[in-house]
Amino acid sequence: MMGFPRLDRDSIVPLYRQIYEHLREAILAGTLPESARLPPERTMADRLAVNRSTVVHAYRELVAEGLIQQRVGSGSRVVPQVRGGQPERAAGVPWWVTLPPWRVGEFPNVLGELAAKQEPGRISFVQGVAPDEPSPLGELAKSFNRVARDPRFVHSYGDSEGYEPLRAAVAARMNARGAATITPNSIIVLTGSTQGIAIVAQSLAEPGDEIIVESPSYPGALQVFQINGLRAIPVPVDDEGMRVDHVEAILRTRRPRFIYTMPALHNPTNATMNADRRERLATLARRGGVPIVEDDPYGPLAPAGAPLVALAPDYVVYISTFSKTIAPSLRVGWLAAPRTILERLLLRKQAYDMATSLYVQAAITDYLEHGYDAHVEQLRAELVERRALADKAIARHWPATLRISRPAGGFYLWASTPRELRARALLDASERLGASFLFGEAFFANSGGDHHFRLALTAVARREIAEGIRRIGRAIATLRS
Amino acid sequence: MMGFPRLDRDSIVPLYRQIYEHLREAILAGTLPESARLPPERTMADRLAVNRSTVVHAYRELVAEGLIQQRVGSGSRVVPQVRGGQPERAAGVPWWVTLPPWRVGEFPNVLGELAAKQEPGRISFVQGVAPDEPSPLGELAKSFNRVARDPRFVHSYGDSEGYEPLRAAVAARMNARGAATITPNSIIVLTGSTQGIAIVAQSLAEPGDEIIVESPSYPGALQVFQINGLRAIPVPVDDEGMRVDHVEAILRTRRPRFIYTMPALHNPTNATMNADRRERLATLARRGGVPIVEDDPYGPLAPAGAPLVALAPDYVVYISTFSKTIAPSLRVGWLAAPRTILERLLLRKQAYDMATSLYVQAAITDYLEHGYDAHVEQLRAELVERRALADKAIARHWPATLRISRPAGGFYLWASTPRELRARALLDASERLGASFLFGEAFFANSGGDHHFRLALTAVARREIAEGIRRIGRAIATLRS
Repeated sequence: MMGFPRLDRDSIVPLYRQIYEHLREAILAGTLPESARLPPERTMADRLAVNRSTVVHAYRELVAEGLIQQRVGSGSRVVPQVRGGQPERAAGVPWWVTLPPWRVGEFPNVLGELAAKQEPGRISFVQGVAPDEPSPLGELAKSFNRVARDPRFVHSYGDSEGYEPLRAAVAARMNARGAATITPNSIIVLTGSTQGIAIVAQSLAEPGDEIIVESPSYPGALQVFQINGLRAIPVPVDDEGMRVDHVEAILRTRRPRFIYTMPALHNPTNATMNADRRERLATLARRGGVPIVEDDPYGPLAPAGAPLVALAPDYVVYISTFSKTIAPSLRVGWLAAPRTILERLLLRKQAYDMATSLYVQAAITDYLEHGYDAHVEQLRAELVERRALADKAIARHWPATLRISRPAGGFYLWASTPRELRARALLDASERLGASFLFGEAFFANSGGDHHFRLALTAVARREIAEGIRRIGRAIATLRS
Repeated sequence: MMGFPRLDRDSIVPLYRQIYEHLREAILAGTLPESARLPPERTMADRLAVNRSTVVHAYRELVAEGLIQQRVGSGSRVVPQVRGGQPERAAGVPWWVTLPPWRVGEFPNVLGELAAKQEPGRISFVQGVAPDEPSPLGELAKSFNRVARDPRFVHSYGDSEGYEPLRAAVAARMNARGAATITPNSIIVLTGSTQGIAIVAQSLAEPGDEIIVESPSYPGALQVFQINGLRAIPVPVDDEGMRVDHVEAILRTRRPRFIYTMPALHNPTNATMNADRRERLATLARRGGVPIVEDDPYGPLAPAGAPLVALAPDYVVYISTFSKTIAPSLRVGWLAAPRTILERLLLRKQAYDMATSLYVQAAITDYLEHGYDAHVEQLRAELVERRALADKAIARHWPATLRISRPAGGFYLWASTPRELRARALLDASERLGASFLFGEAFFANSGGDHHFRLALTAVARREIAEGIRRIGRAIATLRS
């Protein structure tokens, strides 16, 4: 007889997944015998005090793996051929049923939405891409063209650590931002900053380890941590950045493997960590022997100020990218790390994709010499103007009961709705009126986000900002009436 | 008192690494007390029956991590501050000392050599890159140029599974090669085929699991498997491909997670698996419920013949790349997998780098329409001609005691030396005479390779093939005299 699963509501593993894994184990171990009937979804949901849809989701996964069958009228039954004394690889069990457990939750769907296609007529504040204007494409195409016929760049794997002149150009720019210790040799070129997050998740921690993350935080990073079995200890973010006092309290009793933070133009709140908190965080890292993973995709667009790596170079793995300042399709980023761990990180990078495209690296190096800095300057101004347009439209079209994150300058606007207004419901209503955004849940490692949403102000044409906000305002009015 | 480590000579973990891990554990656990002196390197080497350099290597890693100090005259001592009741994160221990264990052996150095720079005047048969001629660069540059100014391609992340028209073009070409069940929806575009190997290593197996690999095999794959803690069961390769009878014997008693094979123009032997063995391998996979990972970078260049995935579509994860047929700097490959596991593989890919460069994907799609097939045709002919030149030079300049792998058509020539001639010694002698190649060790998961080496006939100008082989022949003569 199988017991009902005991759910851990604090776990990073979603509830449906916990149910699924419990049942899967019971079936493979034979505790749930051949042809046994599973409790009806509603009964299971009541017993576990979860939504019925959570159980439906868990059962559906078991069906997809061929472990149970569902028939109208007779409910869910264990598929006969699966049972047996040797459940692992028993004859008749498809091989994919016995694959290692899969630590994946609900983030992937959200990432799917991040990459969602535009619907005609809909103003979509969803994707965190740079605005169409100013466009780097004209100069960038010239840079691509200058390197495209050169066999040295196209006809070679290049070094795993990256193209040396690109590492030198990146190091020089980081030196100029105050990170004086960074040299070309402390940099590894990445295939986008996601690769850097994967590298730290797999090189600095092991499945089951705890890490500190901001709450809210970047969904892509949360997904990487979750897939790698890391357990998130969330720390709130306010208008001055991460609540470092919370970090301090956590470090008194726990030993997380690292602290993941986005201290400049934080995604989704746009917050930039103030100087006091930066100093304090660096001190905590040093004192506790806990490294910081500084994710800085928007740093080059932030108001002047040194990155965290400038304060504690031996305790920071710094990650950034050209996705936000040039274009996401380049898939080129970089990390800077202490020498003590650089080889470890490099080998992990090598084991993901050997080396980042030397052709694209060479083109970026060329573009850094030809138009990059002027483009970044224009982009910074554009972001400020877009935010001003949004603020004006919000003042006009949204009720004062919605709170808006104040820090400006980045790609995003983070809104908090009053108790009676759930973000998912607002999204549904807004989409019917021709505007969309990202609801909050994706940004929280464990739970929360029902009353938050993010607008990517950069994802739409400038002239659509006010109209999109007006449509969302109308959706709010619909729901309140 | 610390005991000497017990070495496992059959392990995939190199001996130096086993020694290092044993000592590191003893130091962190306090078994090796503060200021304790380690046995001199020579003593340790004698006791363990290993080369002194193996011990030197292990000690050097401990020095690099700040765990021991080495002083002339007083040998190697445990660094004081590391000891203590709480070795993990004890005050004064640098944070990187307590990182998770690192499963990395000697492959990385070899990969470094794979990416080695050319020395002037040296004929380097090292890198597995396509020949300079025929060059795809002219047409390819036009394709790049056609997409470089299009914001849809440059200014977007694209979908994680890859650009749909590229997946369609790849599926059509695989259908034409006999893999009839493959559709655009069973394909995921990869950032190079290494990414596909990483995906299967992390999604189809867990650290400690066994897998079957060919012996010899592609060093990049062996490195990925090793970093991910997989244990290789080697199976020999002969001129007809993998010895499937060995696979059958292994499957009688063991349950490897998958069988990794390169059935067409195998690296390094150039062997292509015959039809009987293909059928038998597919049957074994089905019967044993063990999936096959078919690594097929050279498949499009092979003589006509269906890939393994055509024989057992539900049991094969197929991986290929444009690195060999177009250019390595594109970093674009693809995998095709059964629907049952495709989402799992896709989420893993997403967690490495979100999506492969849409710009490069769009350019390749354009090139597939404009010059690719003619280029591949020319390349195939070029490979045959190069091999003929090499065979002729070998007949003239090398003694008959060297055995040469017979299968032709691919990038490589695999040579086996007589007992008295070690490949490393031959490499040293050849480099002095201005020719280099890759010695065999890198190609073997566990041990072996002292008497093998690989020439990449594609890595040099065509006119240099004979001269390079003549120089190696002179080096052989030097060593035999």
